[in-house]
Amino acid sequence: MRTRTAVCFLGLALSTSTSAQRFVRFIATDGKEYTGDAILPPGDTDAAHSTRAHVITGDILGDFAITKDTIRTLLAPLAPERTRTVRCVGFNYANHAMEANVTIPDFPILFFKPWTALSTPSAPIPVTAQYQNQTNFTSTMDYETELVVVIKKKAFNITDEEALDHVLGYAAGHDVSHRGWQIDRGGQPQPQYSMGKGADGWAPWGPAIVSTSIIKDPQKLKLWTKVNGVMKQNDTTASMIFGVAHLVSSFSMGITLMPGDIIFTGTPSGVNLGKADPQWLTNGDVVEVGTENIGTCTNTITYV
Amino acid sequence: MRTRTAVCFLGLALSTSTSAQRFVRFIATDGKEYTGDAILPPGDTDAAHSTRAHVITGDILGDFAITKDTIRTLLAPLAPERTRTVRCVGFNYANHAMEANVTIPDFPILFFKPWTALSTPSAPIPVTAQYQNQTNFTSTMDYETELVVVIKKKAFNITDEEALDHVLGYAAGHDVSHRGWQIDRGGQPQPQYSMGKGADGWAPWGPAIVSTSIIKDPQKLKLWTKVNGVMKQNDTTASMIFGVAHLVSSFSMGITLMPGDIIFTGTPSGVNLGKADPQWLTNGDVVEVGTENIGTCTNTITYV
Repeated sequence: MRTRTAVCFLGLALSTSTSAQRFVRFIATDGKEYTGDAILPPGDTDAAHSTRAHVITGDILGDFAITKDTIRTLLAPLAPERTRTVRCVGFNYANHAMEANVTIPDFPILFFKPWTALSTPSAPIPVTAQYQNQTNFTSTMDYETELVVVIKKKAFNITDEEALDHVLGYAAGHDVSHRGWQIDRGGQPQPQYSMGKGADGWAPWGPAIVSTSIIKDPQKLKLWTKVNGVMKQNDTTASMIFGVAHLVSSFSMGITLMPGDIIFTGTPSGVNLGKADPQWLTNGDVVEVGTENIGTCTNTITYV
Repeated sequence: MRTRTAVCFLGLALSTSTSAQRFVRFIATDGKEYTGDAILPPGDTDAAHSTRAHVITGDILGDFAITKDTIRTLLAPLAPERTRTVRCVGFNYANHAMEANVTIPDFPILFFKPWTALSTPSAPIPVTAQYQNQTNFTSTMDYETELVVVIKKKAFNITDEEALDHVLGYAAGHDVSHRGWQIDRGGQPQPQYSMGKGADGWAPWGPAIVSTSIIKDPQKLKLWTKVNGVMKQNDTTASMIFGVAHLVSSFSMGITLMPGDIIFTGTPSGVNLGKADPQWLTNGDVVEVGTENIGTCTNTITYV
């Protein structure tokens, strides 16, 4: 177990610090919600495995202090209300573009999810009737593992070189997608992806925001998806077409990125889209998305 | 001049009321920001022409009271921080789909703008260098007049019949668009529109939120665009492919619409997109978008 950086009663911080490494949000045994720095088992980097955390008081996007530790159940690392804008990137891995028979893009492909889609590392993924099988309409639910970037401070017209200074850290994320609504019913001939990606709970993320002090290079991280324990996606962020720094700078083009904004940076190959024999997700399927040195989100497709 | 519904000092409301008709937000002569109910010249319905308003205390999405009146300069009807999600509709008028050579959609085409794009009825529309003319890249700035819908209360999986009960009222809006970033640089063969529509200040709206008590049928409103005083778009909301009620219900499909969310409902024909001889907007152009019984937003394209 790591040494506590500060120990005191909650609310009486002994020191102001920006040394937290794995920001988590959780419900403690007292039933209350806290933000914390995850305490991990030795040799483990997945905050989803931790059962304790140092409590953080203050604002992880500003000044904060680390106080006592406590037992916790993980929530999304930022309160959904805190993240007002969720940007997502389409076809940012060449192998994924090729499997979907899409031209490799010359510029980042940007779309949005509403913040109401944000969810926790373990919550069910709700699928309402409109996304389930219907007469002449197949439920084409698909998984997408993604590296998630959390913006720390305002960014406007910044360069690639300045971009990572505006990042608090990284998380694992799941860009849950229904291909029928995303593409076939998204509009022709230029479908917009929003109808197939924005349902409540369709953006689990976490288990922690791992600080840029731990992840200095976001382009060297393995990321994967397992469905019911079987590996489906398995690549690294080195395969991104547009790296994190360029995504952040591109999205600041005449646009103010705000503290707490998050970016889902695209998914590698291995999804069902484009497969001759797709195995679409269905009720009860357990999907694990994970990123090296960050951890996993494990969520169950749940018909509601 | 209309009779005041209640008169007292600010903060000492005499009555709780939901009778406000044209919700505005403004800076008063004391330099402070207020929400109010616009006082209009006789026979005029454009809150952009009013110089006085009844002050509203409380929450226009909840309980509020109407107190004294004051002089004002208009802001966006809701604080940008209040509107967390801005939905927009693509190709929702058949004549616009045809002029752009796009198939008439079978389902609403949804995309998002970030809330940071929201702006006031009179603010400049800033255009940063990336959207101006460059070598081998034309600045293809275009206008789009739209009816804007403001959500009053949470909506989840609601029907068309229930939809308008969840609406506070309607405003005029300008979906400022750069066609080069929206389409050519938005990704091929399936461009996402977000890169060409989301810059700061590219969603002026207002001048008021006109209550559903005034606009009982949102499908009978003329809407237009004038550029430097010349009429460019001139149609009515009767021409929408998907009416307001169906848009609201569709976007609630497994998704929670929140109080303060707004929807830009698409634009009619008359834009530059698809024209053989387009007259793209440039520095100094004055664009007025307006909707009958609601009013106008008049904003100047401003290179920054």
